[in-house]
Parts: sequence; C-alpha cells; structure tokens
Amino acid sequence: MATLYHVPLSPFCRKVRLVLGEKRIECELIEERYWEQDPDFLRRNPAAKVPVLKIDGKTMAESAPICEYLDEAYPEPSLMPQGVDARYEVRRLVSWFDDKFHHEVTANLLYERVNKKVMKAGYPDSKNIKSGAQRIKYHLDYMTWLLEHRRWLAGDNMTLADFAAAAHLSSLDYISDVDWHRSDTLKDWYAKIKSRPAFRSILADQVSGFPPPPHYADLDF
Amino acid sequence: MATLYHVPLSPFCRKVRLVLGEKRIECELIEERYWEQDPDFLRRNPAAKVPVLKIDGKTMAESAPICEYLDEAYPEPSLMPQGVDARYEVRRLVSWFDDKFHHEVTANLLYERVNKKVMKAGYPDSKNIKSGAQRIKYHLDYMTWLLEHRRWLAGDNMTLADFAAAAHLSSLDYISDVDWHRSDTLKDWYAKIKSRPAFRSILADQVSGFPPPPHYADLDF
Repeated sequence: MATLYHVPLSPFCRKVRLVLGEKRIECELIEERYWEQDPDFLRRNPAAKVPVLKIDGKTMAESAPICEYLDEAYPEPSLMPQGVDARYEVRRLVSWFDDKFHHEVTANLLYERVNKKVMKAGYPDSKNIKSGAQRIKYHLDYMTWLLEHRRWLAGDNMTLADFAAAAHLSSLDYISDVDWHRSDTLKDWYAKIKSRPAFRSILADQVSGFPPPPHYADLDF
Repeated sequence: MATLYHVPLSPFCRKVRLVLGEKRIECELIEERYWEQDPDFLRRNPAAKVPVLKIDGKTMAESAPICEYLDEAYPEPSLMPQGVDARYEVRRLVSWFDDKFHHEVTANLLYERVNKKVMKAGYPDSKNIKSGAQRIKYHLDYMTWLLEHRRWLAGDNMTLADFAAAAHLSSLDYISDVDWHRSDTLKDWYAKIKSRPAFRSILADQVSGFPPPPHYADLDF
C-alpha cells in the first residue's frame, strides 16, 4: 500500500493521484499542511513541499519525476508514448502546465483565492486575480487549438500531459475559474477525462470554507 | 547541424549545451536577448524564453524535455541510468537544481548581479543577494553529502543530474559566487566535470561588462 502526503487542491498532488488511480495503485491519502512545518514532515521531505509519495519502500518527492517513475515501474496502462518525438511532446506539455500555466494562472487564481486564506498569508491581491483571469483565456485557446489537431493534448493517446493539464483545470474548476462555454472542444476533452475512475477521489474533495460549485463533481456539467 | 538560441550564463541553456557537447552533436550557438521580445524569436517560441533548440527539423523548448529527448534520440554516451529507481533519482536531482536551487540561489545571486543590469531591470537587491549567499552553503553541503556516498551526484555514473548542477554552479562561478574552499569533495567533482570537452565552450563565454575571474576557466582552480 502506497501513501501520498498531499494537499487536496494542489495540482501537483492531483496529477500524482490521477496517475496512481489510472494505474490502479492503492494509495492512502494523508493531508499535509506543509506550511505549518511539522518536523515529521520535514524529515520526510527537506524541501518541505507536497506531493511526497511513499511507495515500494521509498520516499519520493517532485511530481514530474514521481509520475515518470510510476509510468516506468507500473507500465500498464502506459501514460507515455513510444517514439522519441512523442515523448518529448508529452514532457514539453507537462512542463508547460506545471511551469508556465502554474505561474501565470494557477498561482494568480487558486493561490490568491484559496491558499492565502488557508495558510493565513494575507488577503487576495485583485491585480493578480485579474491577471490570472485574463491569461487563462489564452491557455484555454491554446489547449483548444491542440485538441482540434489531436485526440488528446500530446497526440492520439491519453498521456501524462492530459493529467498535468486536468490537474490544474480541476483545481481551478473547484473555485469556478474555468469558463467551459469558451470551447466545446475543450469541454469534450475534460468530460472524457473527468469520467475516468481515477478522477473520482478528486471530484469528492472538500476544502473547509470553500464548498465546490454544483457543476464541479457533475460528469454532465 | 543543430542551432541553439541561448543566453551565455543561463544555467538552463548551459545544461543543454553540455548535453549536446557530451553527445558530440554539432550545434551553432545564437545569443538570444529574449527580454527584448524580438518578433522572430516569439514565433520560434511563444513562451519567450531560452533555450530553444532547432534539431532534426524540429524546434524545441523547455530544457528538461530537450535533455531527455537528446538522451533518447542520441543514446551514446548515455546520460540516464537503466533502473527505474536510478532514473527517478536523476530526475529528482534535475528538478532540485532547476527548481529549488534556481529559486533559492541562482535567481538571488546571478539574476540580481548580472541579469538585472543586462536587461536594464533595476538595481541588485542586497536582501536577495544576502539570502542567496546564505542558501548556497546548504546546497553545497547537500551536494558534498551526496558525493561522499556516490561517485557522481545521482549514482556511480555521470548523468543529466551532474550537468544540471554543473550548469548552475558554472554560471555562479563566473561571478565568483561559489566558495570552492568549502569542500574538497565538491571541488574534485567539479574539476572532473569541468575538464570534459563538453565544458570548453562554457569556459570560453564572455559577457560584456562582466569579465570572469581568472580561476573561472582554469582547470586547476
């Protein structure tokens, strides 16, 4: 049995949860309020961040290396394609969402609206929220453009890139920050990935003080 | 012939240059002042950052996916180990340097001292420089601890993890921000990697207004 130390709305933790679920790896979830700097947690991960995964007798940190490990150690079903070009494209998109999208959108919306309150780190900055609300439009359009050329974000098969993207969008959808009217193509993609069994635990998340909107867990949203 | 759009002191570009050099892939270097937002460059990479690599008829961005691509498409010499645990450890350390070390050290020292001036983005913030100078000590000690247990940072062979670390340290060494007296173990590791042919172009870099110290290019530093 694996154990994941996580925060429910963290897109990096959600990405790992989706990969664990897709590969049917049983995993106990333990919520880790890492900003409170619990000494036990710091021993598990000196970098003091989540996700931290205990699996196969090891303790692992860093979501992208964890996901590549899971895909190599538990190859069925595969979430990485075979060819070198296709593999590059998956990794490029994982970086795109976890770096650029995270910095421009997730940090400006989710962290301002939720994390600051939960972590008692001050009030939301409306300038950042405005910037995030503006920039998510370009990202949704970019995703739509990709999905008009491919069945999934990185190619013809579902990969780690789809889970990276879905992890960010699901966290933002929890606070109603994704405009699903913007693109039917994008909505269809999200409906497909949202209906996978791996998504169930994410749709059941509840953060105290932040009830999700009714459409959040609705597969027919 | 490949082409790399780069900035000489960028650790992300240096990591790619080291991998290209180690694999003996001929590559033309073009300096890209990406902060000036040249429309041609923005067409090459809408994310507006370096490195951008043109190779095998493709244009690629994001240093970690580029390096994994190069290792898969040009497998000799291999810079990734075979086992899943060892591969995880390489990726964990690449993330450690490109995320945590970059944020805590490189951004506080190199970007404050050099980038701000080159990009005409204000004056160095002494608070940040002080923080970077303090934090690099912990990182050098962590590297020393790793190297007391292993021949190279991630295990018994040289990997992408060593190049990620050497890329950051070499850029900081250019501005004399690495205290090589702190650890003979670490210095021995850097001497080994510095003497590789792949390192030559990096040791020849010159940034206008910032002459390197004499020890920078000296293999017997």
